[in-house]
Amino acid sequence: MKLAIVGFGLIGSSLARAAQRAYGASLNITAIDPSQDVLTYAQETGLCHQGSTSVLDIPKDCDWVILAAPVAASLALLDTVIKTVGPNTMLSDVGSTKALIVDALNHRHPKFERFIPAHPMAGREVSGPKHGLATLFDNKLVILTPARATVDAVTKAAESFYQKLGARTLRIDDASEHDRLMGYASHLPHLLAFAFVNLAARGNNGTTDYQDLTGGGYRDFTRIAASDPTMWRDIFLGNKDNIVAQLDAFSSILTTYREAILSDNDNSLTELMREAQSERLRLKQIIKGQDK
Amino acid sequence: MKLAIVGFGLIGSSLARAAQRAYGASLNITAIDPSQDVLTYAQETGLCHQGSTSVLDIPKDCDWVILAAPVAASLALLDTVIKTVGPNTMLSDVGSTKALIVDALNHRHPKFERFIPAHPMAGREVSGPKHGLATLFDNKLVILTPARATVDAVTKAAESFYQKLGARTLRIDDASEHDRLMGYASHLPHLLAFAFVNLAARGNNGTTDYQDLTGGGYRDFTRIAASDPTMWRDIFLGNKDNIVAQLDAFSSILTTYREAILSDNDNSLTELMREAQSERLRLKQIIKGQDK
Repeated sequence: MKLAIVGFGLIGSSLARAAQRAYGASLNITAIDPSQDVLTYAQETGLCHQGSTSVLDIPKDCDWVILAAPVAASLALLDTVIKTVGPNTMLSDVGSTKALIVDALNHRHPKFERFIPAHPMAGREVSGPKHGLATLFDNKLVILTPARATVDAVTKAAESFYQKLGARTLRIDDASEHDRLMGYASHLPHLLAFAFVNLAARGNNGTTDYQDLTGGGYRDFTRIAASDPTMWRDIFLGNKDNIVAQLDAFSSILTTYREAILSDNDNSLTELMREAQSERLRLKQIIKGQDK
Repeated sequence: MKLAIVGFGLIGSSLARAAQRAYGASLNITAIDPSQDVLTYAQETGLCHQGSTSVLDIPKDCDWVILAAPVAASLALLDTVIKTVGPNTMLSDVGSTKALIVDALNHRHPKFERFIPAHPMAGREVSGPKHGLATLFDNKLVILTPARATVDAVTKAAESFYQKLGARTLRIDDASEHDRLMGYASHLPHLLAFAFVNLAARGNNGTTDYQDLTGGGYRDFTRIAASDPTMWRDIFLGNKDNIVAQLDAFSSILTTYREAILSDNDNSLTELMREAQSERLRLKQIIKGQDK
């Protein structure tokens, strides 16, 4: 197995670690990253066999090339990487939004059969190759959203590859539907957590009381606001239409709460919360099965 | 030690369990609850020595009477309880908002010296006496907000009492400031989590994809939306002014995000998230010390 990973951050280095665990000594990894420090780290820790700052150095005989840079960077590299790879190399990416990459493939490479866009639903609130984990994908979902030209054999090979790294796979043929669903499941909650911590920071400058008053609910609610701003900027801009629409729908629900509170409308308030509570309890049953 | 607990739900029964752990065989507990089923449960499981549906049955020789019903119910019982207790009994409550109870004491009982309002920052997303825990208050903060007439000896006795149950105590003299800070630290995040789950429920009726797509971020972010709607209705209405003001400030931050996303304003978006990220990382240091 010969693997090239383009973008050797948290996800890229975790792919390298998980692949080493899965393929052992037969594996050869090329790390591509704009940072010489990152490449030095990858080589000194044995996470790659060779490294380069340029995608032009991707070996022609790679089995897989995985674009693991932030979405905008991966999109910018797409054309060059497709021109560079050998005739049997398969490609994938790990972006959290999928419509942009699928559109780029459909329009700019309508006949390229060997790119299978993927979204591993795995991450941490810390960034960089030092924080990568061999276990990052274990039992996590990797969603595959084939482009129009992607052949089935490549999608199936990707299923095997990501499963071998420990993940479960799910195919969603419509990349826009993927992005809409991920708006609810991930992007909007992150946006709200970021915005809430902005508010809390501004409303409580320097008071120690506030810090000491944060309970478990606050901690869980805001944990995701420590995530990497650059990655999330790309996600928010890359899923703009869904996020703005969902944000508007959310604001309208907030207005309902606001009015119920202002007018002391007990029943309306309780009913709203009961709807949320029962949805959350329903989800809990499903979630239970997924948590380790 | 003779203790009466008014409202024998999650918090009330946890107080009983923690007091049994702390005081052992010398403890005598009276449970007051409107539900006969709850009282039967409390008696059969040995959580109380005697029970009644009426606060008029609170023994005159109690050392402590703790109002552990939802805020509105505790407020409604306040006058009767103060009239009923013996001359040496001390009183406290466990409400999550404190301005209402302190105002009620200041205006309706301006000379009553033995009521010390308290807010134990402890809870679970499940309700009822069966889910109470002896360990619920361990290392948790109990905030004390004395009324104007509360004498210092009673505040000090409350500090000893709650500390003996496992908690740390913090005195905040201004109950309104307590409520404002708790808006940020707890009430608003709960409101946002409820509203977000409302949105997700409506946007994805019956799709299984959505359920399977929820990652760890979603789970943490929405966990608190499973909390008891009745309790939260009382909190939202009892802290109305702060919550509406904070909600409006939050909505204005959301608008900033929305505009940055719509206009592809990379810098503004990244800057907003960096502010949130650094605040969250700063808090993490403090939070670390508090988590078990």
